[in-house]
Amino acid sequence: MSDASATPPSPRSEHFVQSLERGLMVIRAFSPEAPSMTLSEVARATGLTRAAARRFLLTLVDLGYVRTDGRHFALTPRVLELGYAYLSSAGLPEVALPHLERLVAEVHESSSVSVLDGDDVVYVARVPTSRIMTVAINVGTRFPAYATSMGRVLLSGRSPAELEAYLARVELRRLTPHTVDSVDRLRAAIERAGSQGWAIVDQELEEGLRSVAAPIRDRRGGVVAAVNVSAHAPRTSVEDIRRDLLPPLLAAAARIETDLEIAGRGTAPFPI
Amino acid sequence: MSDASATPPSPRSEHFVQSLERGLMVIRAFSPEAPSMTLSEVARATGLTRAAARRFLLTLVDLGYVRTDGRHFALTPRVLELGYAYLSSAGLPEVALPHLERLVAEVHESSSVSVLDGDDVVYVARVPTSRIMTVAINVGTRFPAYATSMGRVLLSGRSPAELEAYLARVELRRLTPHTVDSVDRLRAAIERAGSQGWAIVDQELEEGLRSVAAPIRDRRGGVVAAVNVSAHAPRTSVEDIRRDLLPPLLAAAARIETDLEIAGRGTAPFPI
Repeated sequence: MSDASATPPSPRSEHFVQSLERGLMVIRAFSPEAPSMTLSEVARATGLTRAAARRFLLTLVDLGYVRTDGRHFALTPRVLELGYAYLSSAGLPEVALPHLERLVAEVHESSSVSVLDGDDVVYVARVPTSRIMTVAINVGTRFPAYATSMGRVLLSGRSPAELEAYLARVELRRLTPHTVDSVDRLRAAIERAGSQGWAIVDQELEEGLRSVAAPIRDRRGGVVAAVNVSAHAPRTSVEDIRRDLLPPLLAAAARIETDLEIAGRGTAPFPI
Repeated sequence: MSDASATPPSPRSEHFVQSLERGLMVIRAFSPEAPSMTLSEVARATGLTRAAARRFLLTLVDLGYVRTDGRHFALTPRVLELGYAYLSSAGLPEVALPHLERLVAEVHESSSVSVLDGDDVVYVARVPTSRIMTVAINVGTRFPAYATSMGRVLLSGRSPAELEAYLARVELRRLTPHTVDSVDRLRAAIERAGSQGWAIVDQELEEGLRSVAAPIRDRRGGVVAAVNVSAHAPRTSVEDIRRDLLPPLLAAAARIETDLEIAGRGTAPFPI
């Protein structure tokens, strides 16, 4: 999962409310490695003074987002409300989920929908199969776009100028020995995804994991999201994916597009 | 879904950071009914002045949580990071998910895990089947505890004093003609859930929806979460649920408890 801080926010406006930024930093400081922290640990993790960290933690306790035993602090499930505000307002996850479920019942592999946020794909809907992956993927999980099939179809929907800006700033990390390691090869893969209307990525994000993705387009033809199916490499060859998984995936993408149009909703409540 | 504002936060400490509260209010103002709002609409929805709403919106734009076309504002998927901070730090969803998947593959009905937050159950993990419910349930969805099977097993794990305080303050809304309408009947149902180790709720949350839930306990015996299976009333009688769904549900709950113990994790990083 890529670090969100890798995408720097735009320059601060004069109206910037620093307390809000710091409070959100405190929420994001909690992680699987640090599910519970003392005041000092929160201060260290956020770079805040102890006094400031204390004010934000106590405010979050008052608001019900954090709980404490007096010494340790941990997030409460109320924090989910914040992400839920996005999921429920976006509309897309709700529209897509029944189609993902039908697709998963058909192909017996996990399927997800993601959108582009900065230079990452972010999962907004997911139907897993019962096979356990080494990577735990949830709604909200982020991966660098260049290493994923959904990222490539999402990037193929960007304007040439946006794509070139992305290619100029992207740092390609070798997540596996197969990860694309040149900007030219990445550009070619994205262009191919755009012209053929799908992308297969072969173990570039994680060893042993292959996936195929298709774009979800709004009525104007803009790529608003991507849908994928992933499979285990030892069991499913690239040719298997193309023959067995791609056709049902493209059919599911088309059904999602139809339903989005009927619902009059996409991920974009206004043109971006 | 119950309104979060129904559970009033505790009295404000002197260290309370009002800007943080207001910024979080702005995030929560977006909804399926209002996925995109103008400045005036956000001010109206939050009770903030236009000037204040503008400062918070622009700060959220700077931080990447909100996007704007200059006139309308909408949340970005970055907001999911906040909920993800909870999900990843809680540990429980990750541990439970493979067991939910196995259970759903076995019984062909949707299964979820929830925890108690205030007087609501909040879904923290869910594996749906391909049948579409009239209620869309996601991770982060909240329902009043009294009307759900998970709520009753969760309430059965509270101390007698906590339970009586809950019963003294709860307002029972008739969500369907079947919803429990007396505190005495609710207390009896919760006590039965505690003594038998499971609860069935028959169309009290939604007409046509039955569900059965079991507690997930930590090694000290405390109820840290609940796991359920839900089914359509016309197809599945209460007796069907007891005979066909309850045994695999109890087996899944036991497996989740074992894995939580092995992982050394529960929803509570410290005793509550």
